[in-house]
Formats: sequence, structure tokens, C-alpha cells
Amino acid sequence: MKFNKELNHTTSHLLAAAVIKLYPNVKLGFGPATQEGFYYDFKFEKPLSDEELIKIEKTMKNLASGGYKMVKTAGENYDFSDKPFKKELYDEIVEKNQEATFYSLVNPSNNQILFEDLCSGGHEESTSKIKHFKLLSIAGAYWRGNSDNEQLTRIYGTAWETKEELNEYLELLKERKERDHRKIGKELNIFTFSHLSGQGFPIWLEDGMKIRNAIRERILYFDKKYGFKEVLTPHFGAQELYEISGHLEHYKDDMFKPLEVENEKLIARPMTCPHHIILFDREKRSYRELPIRYSEQSRLYRYEKSGALTGLERVRAMDLTEGHVFARKNQIVSEFKHLYKMILETLSLFDIKLDYVSFSKRDPENKEKFFNDDQMWNQAERDLETVLKELNIDYEEKIGEAAFYGPKIDFQVKTVLNHEITMSTLQLDFLLPQKFNISFINENNEKETPVLIHRGLIGTYERFISILLEQTKGNLPFWASPRQFTIIPIENAKHLEYAKKIKNKLDFLNFNVDLDDRDERINRKIRESQIMKTKYQIIIGDEEVKNQNITYRRYGENNSYTVEFNEFLLEMIHKLHYKK
Amino acid sequence: MKFNKELNHTTSHLLAAAVIKLYPNVKLGFGPATQEGFYYDFKFEKPLSDEELIKIEKTMKNLASGGYKMVKTAGENYDFSDKPFKKELYDEIVEKNQEATFYSLVNPSNNQILFEDLCSGGHEESTSKIKHFKLLSIAGAYWRGNSDNEQLTRIYGTAWETKEELNEYLELLKERKERDHRKIGKELNIFTFSHLSGQGFPIWLEDGMKIRNAIRERILYFDKKYGFKEVLTPHFGAQELYEISGHLEHYKDDMFKPLEVENEKLIARPMTCPHHIILFDREKRSYRELPIRYSEQSRLYRYEKSGALTGLERVRAMDLTEGHVFARKNQIVSEFKHLYKMILETLSLFDIKLDYVSFSKRDPENKEKFFNDDQMWNQAERDLETVLKELNIDYEEKIGEAAFYGPKIDFQVKTVLNHEITMSTLQLDFLLPQKFNISFINENNEKETPVLIHRGLIGTYERFISILLEQTKGNLPFWASPRQFTIIPIENAKHLEYAKKIKNKLDFLNFNVDLDDRDERINRKIRESQIMKTKYQIIIGDEEVKNQNITYRRYGENNSYTVEFNEFLLEMIHKLHYKK
Repeated sequence: MKFNKELNHTTSHLLAAAVIKLYPNVKLGFGPATQEGFYYDFKFEKPLSDEELIKIEKTMKNLASGGYKMVKTAGENYDFSDKPFKKELYDEIVEKNQEATFYSLVNPSNNQILFEDLCSGGHEESTSKIKHFKLLSIAGAYWRGNSDNEQLTRIYGTAWETKEELNEYLELLKERKERDHRKIGKELNIFTFSHLSGQGFPIWLEDGMKIRNAIRERILYFDKKYGFKEVLTPHFGAQELYEISGHLEHYKDDMFKPLEVENEKLIARPMTCPHHIILFDREKRSYRELPIRYSEQSRLYRYEKSGALTGLERVRAMDLTEGHVFARKNQIVSEFKHLYKMILETLSLFDIKLDYVSFSKRDPENKEKFFNDDQMWNQAERDLETVLKELNIDYEEKIGEAAFYGPKIDFQVKTVLNHEITMSTLQLDFLLPQKFNISFINENNEKETPVLIHRGLIGTYERFISILLEQTKGNLPFWASPRQFTIIPIENAKHLEYAKKIKNKLDFLNFNVDLDDRDERINRKIRESQIMKTKYQIIIGDEEVKNQNITYRRYGENNSYTVEFNEFLLEMIHKLHYKK
Repeated sequence: MKFNKELNHTTSHLLAAAVIKLYPNVKLGFGPATQEGFYYDFKFEKPLSDEELIKIEKTMKNLASGGYKMVKTAGENYDFSDKPFKKELYDEIVEKNQEATFYSLVNPSNNQILFEDLCSGGHEESTSKIKHFKLLSIAGAYWRGNSDNEQLTRIYGTAWETKEELNEYLELLKERKERDHRKIGKELNIFTFSHLSGQGFPIWLEDGMKIRNAIRERILYFDKKYGFKEVLTPHFGAQELYEISGHLEHYKDDMFKPLEVENEKLIARPMTCPHHIILFDREKRSYRELPIRYSEQSRLYRYEKSGALTGLERVRAMDLTEGHVFARKNQIVSEFKHLYKMILETLSLFDIKLDYVSFSKRDPENKEKFFNDDQMWNQAERDLETVLKELNIDYEEKIGEAAFYGPKIDFQVKTVLNHEITMSTLQLDFLLPQKFNISFINENNEKETPVLIHRGLIGTYERFISILLEQTKGNLPFWASPRQFTIIPIENAKHLEYAKKIKNKLDFLNFNVDLDDRDERINRKIRESQIMKTKYQIIIGDEEVKNQNITYRRYGENNSYTVEFNEFLLEMIHKLHYKK
């Protein structure tokens, strides 16, 4: 599947041409190509129905076959009077002393302009290339993404060079929909949102909390094992804190506004690093204490426009499994090895398959994008190379992809939908300790500045769980499942007592277990427990009570097995704990 | 010890008289009696030293013996020109059309006024009663407690009728200082604050987190056992939420200002009840689902003036062990019994001794203080009386102490310093469900409004831990101790290996264990581990390695015991878990 941006951009113009033909009074907004298709924003006189979308698509098909040429035009006759949005853009271009360009679909037989648009270009030569496309959906969108502006109607579509690719892409969309964590999260009672408690602020429901607690328990286990001190710092920082750290200067657009509390200005924190610096700096430190490792399950806040909020993927409040290490320069190699081992072990426990390791360095040809200290960069990159070599790690070098403050090693993972994401990260930071002027006393009784290592393990709970749901379609791995067992007595009068005994034993061992003692038909109970993706259904009937055993069935399987309960219990304990 | 408020108020005037005698240019602020003494605020020309406090006290003693009479005077000759703070108060009184009163210390021999003060009265007749008093400390205090105003010098003192009472009170102060959770929290690395992350926003350090996690684990255990669904809701609420709940109307002064996020106004939440109402209301509920119980480890925010902030006792951010139950009216009795049992079991696990149970009712003579619904109140109070009777509970009835929205049952505890505090609470609330207009469908297919029960278990982590530290002087109970074991090898070369083996076993069982392998003298290691109030010191020497056993000593004891390690381990597991 090879995405063709020019093709899609041209199709968006074709869409606008078709819409104008059908709805002459429509007003036009933006109409770009996206990563996987295109859209165009319109202001219609009345709401558009799904049926009308089919009509528009048909009109596009007819036009496309006309073989209209895409030509850069002068825009002399372009009439702004009925195009208020285009006018606004045009005026801005003029104001900035830039050149406004126009592109037109031109009839090859008579050279007449079918549709002219204010546009910076990037097109196919002719609409005859547009053969395999589909209009996908209608959505509301504010003009320029700002909710203070007028709401427009956005039509999404996608175009491909071959029929096979179009079909493949439509299949992918279907697959994505099935794996959509928002849909699964709703069906399985994992999370929700309410405008009364803030857009983009997740509400975690009972089953979501069980997943979070299972993750938390494992993260705390590793943090302890690898020498991290767990702390809990305030969710706000004084404005001064972010002035010193530089966040207010570089990151302001992503931060909430300050909250005035008496004589203080407090900001819902976007990051935890400055808070951990406060901790390091609260007492005089000796080289003997280093490395000092802090971990935190950190509540963070990030300002996202409401239009950008997407389930758990893009939120305004989130919890990060955070880690920061303060180390001496001569501890960088050993500490990176230590943390590398931690990451591999953690990913393995969570059954996450690593795709590849990337090593992001400064671009030596383009130094102004990076913190200016040649010696630091050379040494730091040499140190990380040493780590990668000594541990015999295959990696991809990414020149120019380093952070502003230092080089980093990322752990890349591929999702089932073929998205590449960074799951874990180790970032070296020389800058922040300098900005806060923190130090420790070395063996010569001199002040020395430590380096800071940012350690990302599995990112935020929000993103991690959204990926888990996507990867598994909600059939979570056993350790994370909020519904590990449902016990179903066939007849309460005869089987409930024994079923309760089984439940108590599983409860005692902290498994997530339900007992379905409703007066419902057995088949309905089994079906409902299937729908909720329970890992094991345990059926209790006459035989089980008589023989003091159980019959179970795994999720998604047809076979059921009758086994001695204690044997089953041992297997489950093993299943849950063997990796610890 | 009987506190005499008049005596203390009179002594505060005597203090002002002495200060004016010694520092004629001083400006006078407030000078009231407090719960245990008195203070007076002054604006001195230069800072006051501790030595000067002794001089002032001496001058007071001399004046007191003069037997000055305290007389209400007309204030005709009171000169406001050099008393700006008094002038401000006086003008306010006049503006409100109230009567300004003055009290003077008058020389009995010549009827001359020694010191006249704007004051609403409440005094002893003569200074001859003032015999047993002490000036205690100097502190900064803003005029009228507002940090925008001038900073004054506050002198604290205390006065008692007998020498014995004064001494007893001074002893109590000493005891309190030793039990001051701020001092202990600092010494034991439990919590701290920083102006960079907000005044009154606690920072929990590693050992504090271990205490919190131990508490959390136990609370989650009980919540699960008693059928609560753990959830996690956003730490902000929309302004609309608090308009509906009535918090904005009645509670505004204690709330943070709203934060504007795009087109929303979000408020750092002061309470969780409205959030749990959102959860109840997110789907159609049937009577079959009730009671629905939600629990949350809830981050809350409360606006306190900076002057009122006190360690963990009075903070601006806190975490509450929260619970809310939605029940039918005919479930009130059974649900209160259920929750009563839960509270007793929890308090017992935490080794908290209940002092008494109080039952707070409406004052039928004074109904306007309470939600107006006679039938509701009568039924609700009858229901709770039924619970108390059927469970055979001794209780104190408190007329007029109910909440605005319903009657409540409080679980009162006495601290070692003889403070009475409410540890747990069960509050019936008919109002909030009505305000949010929530309902469930009953067996007749009709909408019915549930009642809400607020369940307080151990209050906030902040207050609970501050009390724990006060009660124990930092020698925490075993289950809560962040330092359960320190393993001290006598000689690393010979004993470290075995010591590590012991540590691993204790680590594996999730105990809090340190291994002190520093190259330090053994006595220093033992002393330092004592100072940090480690519950068990485990000493490893030649004999222990040879016999594969351990020698341990309990905190605060002199005897040490040599035992087989596995035997010791079983005892410790029992110690930690026997109550579960």
C-alpha cells in the first residue's frame, strides 16, 4: 500500500468541484491531503445526509472521467465575495508579503476552468488518475480548529492508485474500527468521559481500575528491584519552576494557564522532571549517594484542543510511569546498562515485542537545533555508543533526532495496525541540572553537576491501556484482565454453596472473579460472560459438586475441561506469577 | 487543668501594657485569648530577640503585682493618631453602627489609666489574678491574616490559675513538640514541602510512600471485601457541576478559583461526591443493582490561607479514602449495618481505639439550619436509631449536630494529646441525589430517587499519617513502618554474602528492608538505624553465618535474640497478615 499524497490532494479539489456543482451556495474552507486520505471543509446551507454523500461521490466519478487537467492559474477572476474563509486566508498571505497561488481543474477540450482554488499546490496532472477513491464520513469541524469560530462540515475521503490498495485500506479501516479502544473501552466498562468533569479527563471505571492496578503492581515491583525510590510530588508547580526549567518558554502552548492561589501562581504540571529536581536539591548530596533514582506514578496535565482529544490516546490529564536518575558523568555507561536491562525485563513481563532500538544523535551539520556544548555531545554520544556496543545491541542510528538537551535511546514497537510507537525511552539530559544549578560534593570536596536521565518505561497508563485494548480487541492478557474468572452455578439451589467456596479461594488470592448467581438461564450467563471477554468460565453442576472439581472453558474456545480445583488453582497462580 | 479565658485575655492586655512601656513607638494589632493562651500582634521598629521576651515578661510580672483593675472606659481620650490598626477596626465598627467599647487597666491607688484598649471585653477584674503565666514564642503574622497586608510580630503566651496548671501545660507543650508530626516527618524523611511546588502541597518522600502504600493496600482490601467498586475520577469538576451540587454557593471560600480550559471552566475539586453521582447517572439503573458502592483514593483540593497551613494537618492538596453508596430508602438500615461492620473491622486492623460513637440529629427547635423535609428527617433518624439499637451500640446523641442534608453517625477517637477527632463517619444524604435528579427504576417500573451515604473510613492520608506519627512519636506500628528491618553485617568481607541472602528473602515477601553495607563502625550503624526507628535490627556475624541463623533486636529494647531465620520469617509474616 503506497500512499500518494498528490493524488489525494487532487481528489480533495475534485470533491470541492462536485460539491459546488450540487450545492452552488456552499462556502469553502480548507481541503488538504492527510496521512491516509484527504478532507474538505464546507459550510452548507443545511446539514448533509449520508445519502447525499453517495450522490457527491457519483458526481466526482463523472467529473474525474472528464480528464480535467490540474493547472496553476493566476486567480485574476477568482471571486472572493462569496468565499469568506478563502478571503481570510488570502488576506493573511498578502499581509505577510507572500505569494498567493491558485490551482484550477481545466477542461482539456475547451480550456474552461471547472474549479479554481486558493492552494499552494502538490497535485497530479489530471483527474484521469483518480479512479479508486471513496468518501468515508462526515464530521463537524470548527473553522481553523478553533471552537470560537463557525462550525463547518468536514467530508473525509481516501484515494489510491489501484483498486487493490483501496480495498486493502478499507479493510484496514474496518479492522481499526473493531480494534478502536474507545469502542472496546465502552463495551467492557473500562473508562468513560463526562463534560461535567472536563473534556479529555478520563474517568476510570471499576474494570479499568483493575487493569491499572495490575500494571501499577508490576511497575512498582520493577522500580523497587532496580533501586528506584517511589515518591509522590504535587500535581502543580509554581510558575517560577517552569521559568527556570524553560518549559514556560518552549512548551507554553501545551500547558494549562496558571491558577492564582493567594499570592502564588500554580500551573497544572506538564512534566515531573522539575519536581524530582526539587527532591534532589532538598539536601546536600554526596557522590556516595549517586546514582539517585526517583520513580513516580505521576499525574500530568497537557493542554490539547478539544478537537484533538481522542479517547485515551489524546487526553488532557494522564498518569505517567515516570523515572528520573541523577548520576555522575562517569556513571552514564553503567547506569544506561542497568536501565536497559530494566526495560527489557519489563517489556518481556508485559509480553511486548520490541521491534528495534533507535539511537538518536545530534545532527553535526545542524547544530543550532541542539544545546550548544560540543564536548558534552561528543562525550555523551560516545558513552551511549559504548553501552550499545558492550551490550551487543542492534540499533538504528537517527542523526538529528536527539532531544534538544542530549542524545537518547528509544525502544520502538509495532502495533497490530502497523503503527510504529516509542514504548520505552532513555534520554540523557545535561541541561536541566545546569538550569537548576544542582550539584553534589565529589571525593575532592568540590561541587559537581550531575546528569539527569529521563526513563520512560511504558509511557502513560492511558496510552498503554489504549494500545493493550487495540492489540487484543479487548481479550486482555490474563494478568491484566479485569475478568479472569466467572463462576456459573447451573442451579443456585444445588450448586451455589460450592460455587461460593471456589470464589472465596480465588478472591483470597486476589484474582478478579465474579460469581453469576442471577436467576437466569445458563446459556444467557455463558453468553454474557463471553461478551465481556472473561478469560475462564467455571461451570458448577451436579458432577462438579459431587466430585469436588470444576469444569472450565477458556475464552474463545469450544472445548471445556474438567479438572481437580487445586490443580487448576496452581496453574493459575503459575500463569500470573511465573515471570516475577 | 481548667483553662480560664478571661484570665488569658486580661494577660494579653497586660502584655500590651508592658510592651508599650518598653517600646513606646510600637503599634498595636489584635490581642485575643486563644484556646490555650493568648497572643498580641505588634509592629515593632526593629525585630525582637528572645532575650527581649524575657525582659517583657519581667515587666509584666512587676505590673501585675500592682493590682491594676480592669475597667470598661469611654475611650474619650483614646488617641488613634499613632494606632493605625486600631483606627481601622474602630472605623469599621462605626460604619456598621455598632458600639465601640474600651477596657482599661486602672491604677487602684490614683485611678490613673495605665493602658486603654479598643476591646469587646471578657476580663478578670484585676491583674492581681495574673500570677502564673509565661511568654512562649514570637512569630510573624500578617495584619488580619492576609498576606497582602503588613507583617506584624506576634507574641504568644499562656496564663493559668495555679502554678501546677502552668507547669502541667508547659509539660504538655514539650510533649506536643516531641510528638509534632512536622518534626518527626522531617527527621524520618516522610514528607516535605517546597514553595516551588506550592505551599501546602505535600511532597511524599520514599519512606512516606511506603507508609501510604501500606495503608492503601489495606483500604483496597476492605473496599473489595465490602463490595465497593474502585474508580478513579478526574481531579477537576466543571463549574456547572458545583453549581448543581450547591458547593459553589455554600463552599466557595474553601475552593480554588476556576481554571479556564478552552471553553470550559474547571475547578480543582473540593469533594468527590458529585463525581460519583456522574458515575451513577451514566446509565439507566435498576433496583436490582442497588446498593451501588463506589470507592476512590481521591485527590482533593481545598483553599486554605497560607497562614493556616500546618504540616500535613492543614494542606491545600490531599488524598481521601473515599466511599459513596447509592441505596434505596428501604436499604438504609441494612446498608448502615454493613458499613458499621466495615468501619469497626478497619479501625481494628489499624489498631485504632474507638472512644465513642456519636449520633448527630437535627435540632427540631431550630429547623431552619437543616434541609426542610420533616418526613425525611423523621424517617432517617428513626432508621439510624434502629441500626444503633439492633447492633446494641452505645452512643451519644448530639442534637443539632447533623449535616444540612441529613443525620450522621461519627466514630470519635482520642489522641494521646487528648484531642477528640472524628476518625470515621457515615452520613445520610437525601439532598444531593435530588439536586442531580438521579433515579433508578423500581420493581413497578417507576423512577425512584436513591439516597446517598457518604462513608469516611480513616479520612485523608495526610491527616491519618500525621496522627499516626503523633501517636507513636515516629515508632510506627510494624505494618506501617517504612523501616521494618535493617540488616547489619559486622564485617562485609565475611558476612555480606549471607546478609544479602537474608535481604533477598525479606524483599521477596515485600517487607521494607535495608542492608547497611557501608564501611562504617558497627556501633554507628546500629545507632543510626535506631534514630530512624527501624523496627528490627538484624546483626550478622561469624556465629550467624556459621549456624545459618540471625540475631535481632527490637526497636527500643536492649535484649537481642538469636533464632533460626525461617522461624523468624514466619513470625514476621504472621505479624503482618494475621488480621487479614
